Amino acid sequence: MTQRFSYQLQSTDGQARQGIVHTPRGDIRTPAFMPVGTAATVKAMMPSSVRETGADILLGNTYHLMLRPTAERIASLGGLHRFMNWDGPILTDSGGFQVMSLAELRKLTEEGVSFRSHIDGSRHMLTPERSMEIQRLLGSDIVMCFDECPALPADRARLESSMQLSMRWAQRSRDAFGDRPGHALFGIQQGGDDEELRGQSAEALRAIEFDGYAVGGLAVGEGQEIMFRVLDYAPAMLPTDKPRYLMGVGKPDDLVGAVKRGIDMFDCVLPSRSGRTGQAFTARGVVNIKNARHQDDPRPLEEGCPCPACSGYSRAYLHHVFRAKEIISSMLLTWHNLTYYQRLMADMRAAIAEQKFAEFEAKFHAGRAQGDVEPV
Amino acid sequence: MTQRFSYQLQSTDGQARQGIVHTPRGDIRTPAFMPVGTAATVKAMMPSSVRETGADILLGNTYHLMLRPTAERIASLGGLHRFMNWDGPILTDSGGFQVMSLAELRKLTEEGVSFRSHIDGSRHMLTPERSMEIQRLLGSDIVMCFDECPALPADRARLESSMQLSMRWAQRSRDAFGDRPGHALFGIQQGGDDEELRGQSAEALRAIEFDGYAVGGLAVGEGQEIMFRVLDYAPAMLPTDKPRYLMGVGKPDDLVGAVKRGIDMFDCVLPSRSGRTGQAFTARGVVNIKNARHQDDPRPLEEGCPCPACSGYSRAYLHHVFRAKEIISSMLLTWHNLTYYQRLMADMRAAIAEQKFAEFEAKFHAGRAQGDVEPV
Repeated sequence: MTQRFSYQLQSTDGQARQGIVHTPRGDIRTPAFMPVGTAATVKAMMPSSVRETGADILLGNTYHLMLRPTAERIASLGGLHRFMNWDGPILTDSGGFQVMSLAELRKLTEEGVSFRSHIDGSRHMLTPERSMEIQRLLGSDIVMCFDECPALPADRARLESSMQLSMRWAQRSRDAFGDRPGHALFGIQQGGDDEELRGQSAEALRAIEFDGYAVGGLAVGEGQEIMFRVLDYAPAMLPTDKPRYLMGVGKPDDLVGAVKRGIDMFDCVLPSRSGRTGQAFTARGVVNIKNARHQDDPRPLEEGCPCPACSGYSRAYLHHVFRAKEIISSMLLTWHNLTYYQRLMADMRAAIAEQKFAEFEAKFHAGRAQGDVEPV
Repeated sequence: MTQRFSYQLQSTDGQARQGIVHTPRGDIRTPAFMPVGTAATVKAMMPSSVRETGADILLGNTYHLMLRPTAERIASLGGLHRFMNWDGPILTDSGGFQVMSLAELRKLTEEGVSFRSHIDGSRHMLTPERSMEIQRLLGSDIVMCFDECPALPADRARLESSMQLSMRWAQRSRDAFGDRPGHALFGIQQGGDDEELRGQSAEALRAIEFDGYAVGGLAVGEGQEIMFRVLDYAPAMLPTDKPRYLMGVGKPDDLVGAVKRGIDMFDCVLPSRSGRTGQAFTARGVVNIKNARHQDDPRPLEEGCPCPACSGYSRAYLHHVFRAKEIISSMLLTWHNLTYYQRLMADMRAAIAEQKFAEFEAKFHAGRAQGDVEPV
């Protein structure tokens, strides 16, 4: 195990990249999907089960954890890894995105964001310095810069001033983070769907120097077409010798399109949240397990899937426990969805290593085109 | 693996008995606690995890399963074992108790009970013959007679007419069950807290002949004192060469007192239901994990407990996820409680085998007397 954080690019196929992020807590095979453990748990999953799906790293949410149980409490209990019983790497977001979407009475200034907790109404302030402190208290392996991010569409003036604020905050984050061997700080590119602003943001971040770079400000309502248009140029503006992380993305076809355009890391609540609402991802598309057509179906959710939901149960059972609102429904469907996502990432890594990403992509889309309509 | 159902009494200590129930699907070490899998799932648990806690057998509820997903559907999908992915023995109740406590517009006649489903309002009829048919469709290994059971206190006339009806239904259950090698039918003793009626009921059941005998009509509001008073005489009225099952019991001290009085099998929703409401059973008593005193406590729920909740997490974490309403809270606390119950049963089996039940009982009560109040 290395004691330093580093990125090793192993192979490329077009813009797609396959590699390894080395961290003191273990390697992250990229392209990587990070399951989201918002409140110190990947909902409905044991950490050991998350690991079994193939996950190398989890994401924790600074905003949620600072409010409950608080970063100070987690620190006094030995840090987030011990607290949630996950010994692999953890990436924490900065709290910047969620404070703007979840908190109450929020006020944005040059200094940071003041707000009231959506849980108990208590007053708080998040700044680049406070965000760095919280992420240090949590013991995060990959720390994200504190940033601000407008929803799309937004006019150029709004995108520009927001991006410039985020770049000033990026410098303050870098200064506050200091020198922490084995821990990484990622900068976040902003600029919305404006190529010139994306370029300016990338330049500013490169000047500061980070251990990795996120493409921020996407997956905020703009749709896949605009997102891919931005990804056609944004990743290439970032250093090739550092990992590139697309925040908050996404659906399976979003991941494939983003990997194709040079992204290495992803996080999204979609596979776990969908598991709780009865939606299952498969190579043939989405299965809505609550539909009555599954009630007598003895087949597994997805043939060949090694997850416990598919190896142990029929669609009829999954339909029954979903309808009966049984907890095992969330457990099994989340397990399946995270397994599906990790297998998708593994398939993409293999395809890139073999220079067969185009074949992979064609097969991926062909499978989905079949739809989930075959007879028993 | 035997192809027949049989009970092997291995040792006794006073009235307490230790033995093995042999079934084609595996042995049941007695005294045994059966976790309840009402709707084809032990809530918040994977079947493999239930097995890991030490459970040899599960209980399924006829009333719930006949309504959703229906016994016919489970039969067409290969039976309850395959449906819920549990290959050990399953005992099913008759539906008689729950139809009287959960169903709507129920009407009791000599023939049986007609009622409306509490789920969708559909009309149904449960009779001894229909109950036997449903339990056969489910593939139950241990089938319970269809009976009727008044809440206590009840006057003697009510207890007597109810017991006599249950005995007529016991004969009809026996006739309808027929000859099913490898599957067992248990009779259910009634008579409330009336010793004479208990004796008449036991005599009637012994005349019919069953593979095991339940002490029914307890845990219906009468309290532990009256329950133990009945158990001072009721089990001894039943054959010594067949297992004795106390239905719907109970708290840990109920189990200890009932084993002492000659009971071999138990079922109860308490450990799983309490797990979901934040109550944990330990050798030192009940821990209410929602209490603020746990929020900074780095200790495990119970020292020395091998379950994942105790080996992987602090009380502070369990407090946090309970407060945050995370699913893992129900998963971990249920896992702990079922582990506690199975360890309690294992300890009692060992104590009886070593003729040390009195020492076990003294230690059990001494541990609880300490209370869960020790400093960190």
